[in-house]
Amino acid sequence: MHIAITGAAGFLGQRLVHQLLDRGALDGTAIRRLTLIDQAEPPAIEREGVEIRCLALDISSPGALDPVLDARPDVIYHLAAVVSSAAEADLDLGMRVNFDATRALLEGCRAQGLSATRLVMASSVAAYGGDLPEVLDDMTALHPQNSYGAQKAMSELLVNDYSRRGLVDGLVLRLPTIVIRPGRPNAAASSFASSILREPLNGEEAICPVPTDLDLFVMSPARVVEALIHGAEVPGEALGPFRAFMLPGITVSVAEMLEALHEVAGEEALARVRHEPDARIAAIVGSWPARFTNERARRLGFHGDKNFREIVEAFLDERA
Amino acid sequence: MHIAITGAAGFLGQRLVHQLLDRGALDGTAIRRLTLIDQAEPPAIEREGVEIRCLALDISSPGALDPVLDARPDVIYHLAAVVSSAAEADLDLGMRVNFDATRALLEGCRAQGLSATRLVMASSVAAYGGDLPEVLDDMTALHPQNSYGAQKAMSELLVNDYSRRGLVDGLVLRLPTIVIRPGRPNAAASSFASSILREPLNGEEAICPVPTDLDLFVMSPARVVEALIHGAEVPGEALGPFRAFMLPGITVSVAEMLEALHEVAGEEALARVRHEPDARIAAIVGSWPARFTNERARRLGFHGDKNFREIVEAFLDERA
Repeated sequence: MHIAITGAAGFLGQRLVHQLLDRGALDGTAIRRLTLIDQAEPPAIEREGVEIRCLALDISSPGALDPVLDARPDVIYHLAAVVSSAAEADLDLGMRVNFDATRALLEGCRAQGLSATRLVMASSVAAYGGDLPEVLDDMTALHPQNSYGAQKAMSELLVNDYSRRGLVDGLVLRLPTIVIRPGRPNAAASSFASSILREPLNGEEAICPVPTDLDLFVMSPARVVEALIHGAEVPGEALGPFRAFMLPGITVSVAEMLEALHEVAGEEALARVRHEPDARIAAIVGSWPARFTNERARRLGFHGDKNFREIVEAFLDERA
Repeated sequence: MHIAITGAAGFLGQRLVHQLLDRGALDGTAIRRLTLIDQAEPPAIEREGVEIRCLALDISSPGALDPVLDARPDVIYHLAAVVSSAAEADLDLGMRVNFDATRALLEGCRAQGLSATRLVMASSVAAYGGDLPEVLDDMTALHPQNSYGAQKAMSELLVNDYSRRGLVDGLVLRLPTIVIRPGRPNAAASSFASSILREPLNGEEAICPVPTDLDLFVMSPARVVEALIHGAEVPGEALGPFRAFMLPGITVSVAEMLEALHEVAGEEALARVRHEPDARIAAIVGSWPARFTNERARRLGFHGDKNFREIVEAFLDERA
């Protein structure tokens, strides 16, 4: 089993690499080879019996992935992306990384005849937008209101069409807001969703810029990585006529998130969250859908977190 | 008012050109200039007071449209496309004409600062597919099951995103099956929908390859051209958060189509239709949605045909 991963140096990529190596097998077959790709060389890692190569590549240049695809990987995880704020600030950069690179990857698979290679791409809840219903289902249209979401939606269509034509065996998973991300607050509108838990749990102050009755659709990093792994194992013939769908996150209000913080870490932790409303952030985050039926994902065996408290406890366990 | 039209030599393009010249104005402003573009030079046409240029251009080559966009047209109709059967037979050709050309056009508008130019693009009912509900609405997802539909759906996302960013003032109209097309039967799966009326009305035999209880979603050529013209006149601020939607066709069964033929042209005409079931054509056409609420299109003032008999009578009037 040879697995190639783009965006392998990122937060999800690194978690996926470690999880794959810990499992040792994918779809019942021992992992013998990992090719880790990012714009800067991913951190070196060693594991007995596994040939691991770390490559710095600009995957948006046509042909850049040829040496990787030439080795005919069995599974490709396509996680490389420019995030929403950067794609909004620079249309050309977003188109190049979020769309052209996907197209180049698909063309590479086609050229190499990788019709049996499972391609698992990450898309996002940001692909939804516009006049959305209260509860979204698998037939809700993608009307993205940001360039990142548009580029992801276009890539989904391309992965689906190349798969339908038998040129690759693709699958796109739309990710909920990932909570609790490690690291520091950043410029993303969703940054607070991790920050209001992570910082207080680390004994630091955090700012909550949104009303506490705001609902979010969230998934823990561990469940996202589980879904990526399941995405490589679910049979292509079970996927139905469109190979992109939303993963089953859980709907949680900011108040419920803070209540879980309270339960797990006490009054003192909760008091570290300052409420400073920011209309701009509230408007952006408030436009994201928070309720999905997730019928297709559930039927295919993808699972969400049980409840929000479990997400907080898992973060503490991992930190310990 | 300067109007540029890609695909101007095609059936719809030619009807649009003549309709625009007959009206003499668009959005209340006299038409002073028409730029007609196709891969082969569109037929020459003259009208007093209107500067008409006919150009043979491969609009999928980057920069090919620069001389046209340099003249800052007020309205661009983007009708050029490779049809579904050709796009299915040749993925590269379809991607180049149906997607890359749209992207090049949008990039040209961006480079020229044509933020106020209304771009009206034609998309298609073929962009829908998969596990569709009985009645589709403006929030039904596009899960195309053919490369033509995928390329159109990707182009829609791009037009929407460039419009949202204020780089152009775009609008995409998804066209129903157009009935009655002029000319001869062709290889398109939908060819019969015009053929079973046109040929008998012309005293010729025709073959009906589908069950008569099959429903189609259809629009007459005259109403499509009206919609294209209205598409240049509807204000951008009225379009809402996604600038692509289905035009209001009418739902009609093949039996109703044949009944209209009977009423208008008698038993003799009806007897010219031979029923020779073709499972392949029935499967393709049967997968196309036939019922839409068309709320957004109606709210924006787009109109469908009144009934099917009117479509047949209009064809006879035009032929006379």
